[in-house]
Amino acid sequence: MSKRMGAQTVSLPSRPGVLAFASIVGQKESEGPYGGKFDRIIEDEMNGQKSFEAAERAMLEDAVRLCVSKAGRQLSDVQLLLAGDLLNQIISAGFAARSLAIPFYGLYGACSTISESLSIGGMLADGGFADVLVCATCSHFCTAERQYRTPLELGTQRTPTAQWTVTGSGAVMLAGGAAAKSCAAVLTHATCGKVLDLGITDANNMGAAMAPAACDTIAAHFADTGRGFDDFDLVVTGDLGHLGRDLLIELLREKGVKVPEEKLFDCGCEIFSPRQDTHSGGSGCGCAASMICAHILPELEAGHLNRVLFLATGALLSPTTTMQGESIPGVAHAVALEHRKAGA
Amino acid sequence: MSKRMGAQTVSLPSRPGVLAFASIVGQKESEGPYGGKFDRIIEDEMNGQKSFEAAERAMLEDAVRLCVSKAGRQLSDVQLLLAGDLLNQIISAGFAARSLAIPFYGLYGACSTISESLSIGGMLADGGFADVLVCATCSHFCTAERQYRTPLELGTQRTPTAQWTVTGSGAVMLAGGAAAKSCAAVLTHATCGKVLDLGITDANNMGAAMAPAACDTIAAHFADTGRGFDDFDLVVTGDLGHLGRDLLIELLREKGVKVPEEKLFDCGCEIFSPRQDTHSGGSGCGCAASMICAHILPELEAGHLNRVLFLATGALLSPTTTMQGESIPGVAHAVALEHRKAGA
Repeated sequence: MSKRMGAQTVSLPSRPGVLAFASIVGQKESEGPYGGKFDRIIEDEMNGQKSFEAAERAMLEDAVRLCVSKAGRQLSDVQLLLAGDLLNQIISAGFAARSLAIPFYGLYGACSTISESLSIGGMLADGGFADVLVCATCSHFCTAERQYRTPLELGTQRTPTAQWTVTGSGAVMLAGGAAAKSCAAVLTHATCGKVLDLGITDANNMGAAMAPAACDTIAAHFADTGRGFDDFDLVVTGDLGHLGRDLLIELLREKGVKVPEEKLFDCGCEIFSPRQDTHSGGSGCGCAASMICAHILPELEAGHLNRVLFLATGALLSPTTTMQGESIPGVAHAVALEHRKAGA
Repeated sequence: MSKRMGAQTVSLPSRPGVLAFASIVGQKESEGPYGGKFDRIIEDEMNGQKSFEAAERAMLEDAVRLCVSKAGRQLSDVQLLLAGDLLNQIISAGFAARSLAIPFYGLYGACSTISESLSIGGMLADGGFADVLVCATCSHFCTAERQYRTPLELGTQRTPTAQWTVTGSGAVMLAGGAAAKSCAAVLTHATCGKVLDLGITDANNMGAAMAPAACDTIAAHFADTGRGFDDFDLVVTGDLGHLGRDLLIELLREKGVKVPEEKLFDCGCEIFSPRQDTHSGGSGCGCAASMICAHILPELEAGHLNRVLFLATGALLSPTTTMQGESIPGVAHAVALEHRKAGA
């Protein structure tokens, strides 16, 4: 039976459920407006490890372990781990999968990875290929700075359009089949994004590079499902930041979509407060992942939110492509999430 | 309905089909024993582009286009592209997806990426989430050398255990639903690998680092399905190379598995001839991908092979983890492929 709806969307008729979720973030994130909502705060950027990379990996591992324990399960109950991160060769995810000993498919969608993993995870759960699986991702300010920008020791001044890579991780456990019936938050649709590029070449302006992809995926989801902003309590984007969010609103309006701005919740705009001086806001795989685990999924479970479209956006550049003069392609993958009333 | 079989395997009861496939390789690969079987040979390592990276990306794009045209389809018929490569931030796949304009999920499993994409693609096709999708990957000797090892200009001597990264790309079009019924080669099972690490720290001995994962995934597939070597005409590994293949045989025998050596076909051992002086053989995402498209899938379609277990293996290291003294984790994902007689 085909579950396809339109060009880019699939329905998940069995409604895979969210069994549990966990978030871990750094000190700076704990001082932001949502600081009290994260499950755990790491002590410092080394997180008890010998390198920033090992610190990031330990945070991801711990988020998965915490998520599994919040679900009252064992690691050995998890049939599949769908994870990725920003580091070259997604070493955080690969090495975490080694310690966790869960069968592992590695994903890369830059900062869109958490919604890519929820999309694929939702389909695999709906299709009967996994009863219990975990979607997870992470990022770390210090590893991202040295890999993508400049060594921290240089103290390079950041441009006004720059975003601050979130030190954080989020893990979401999904259930298919019978186990999904008890879940208060469920997945109903997934929309796979196309890679778009409007020619932005400034690697310090990721929001602008990703906004076209966000616009395209929202428009595709609406066209494929016949839904619009009216059908959602929130449309949650990953880490467009302040500039990217403004651009998204402009692009949607150009397409003739009426945008109720209060319904556009960008995790990158929300995670830090203006006094934290992060310029255009937060970014990184861990931004959207930690924010949905700390705020969006709890609100959905509680029924304070009824239906949400969640799309994290990724900039698919590398330092090599930037040095070779290439512009920055962006991608956004969406999942629709709903509150399910007890017994419904 | 659960499609799970044992701890790591799923069945694909609707038998997604292989609609078409295409391979493109470099000059050196064209001079190997399978040289006459590849669809297209690129003129030189620049492939008409300005950088090795752009050359690699163009090869991947061309392989997808060629695969689509061999199926008598248009790019716009393809609902999903599942692709990845070895370069940081999988830029070959991301930028190819930009040009091809196909909705895209990025994957990373190092050299296991082609069997990861066939596994996920097979599940999505079987589950009704895609009727027509393409799984693709690529690698390029010159991009891999400068990213993972040393600049080519240095002329560094290679160690005896080293493998030669294949310049090549392979693309496989899968069909679900009604379109699958006409296919002579079909997917029947997928086994997701665990990340294993026996402590190899020599980044010039990837075969040894990947062999334990290959052994584990073969054993898991056999345990989950009740099958063994007797049930397969070939067990095709990705790029263990000569040393890794020998080690795999040893590890399987330690587990009590009887190994008929003539049934173990390693793409890395086969793609080059000994006189080509590639030391332990070929490697890279493009090795297994181009070899299955050039040799294994045609043999399955023709019925010269009846049933094959195909597992590409990946080493999940990065230069950073190596410099930080970490050992090399490996992973292997398997798909079982069968010939289907006309009308069956």
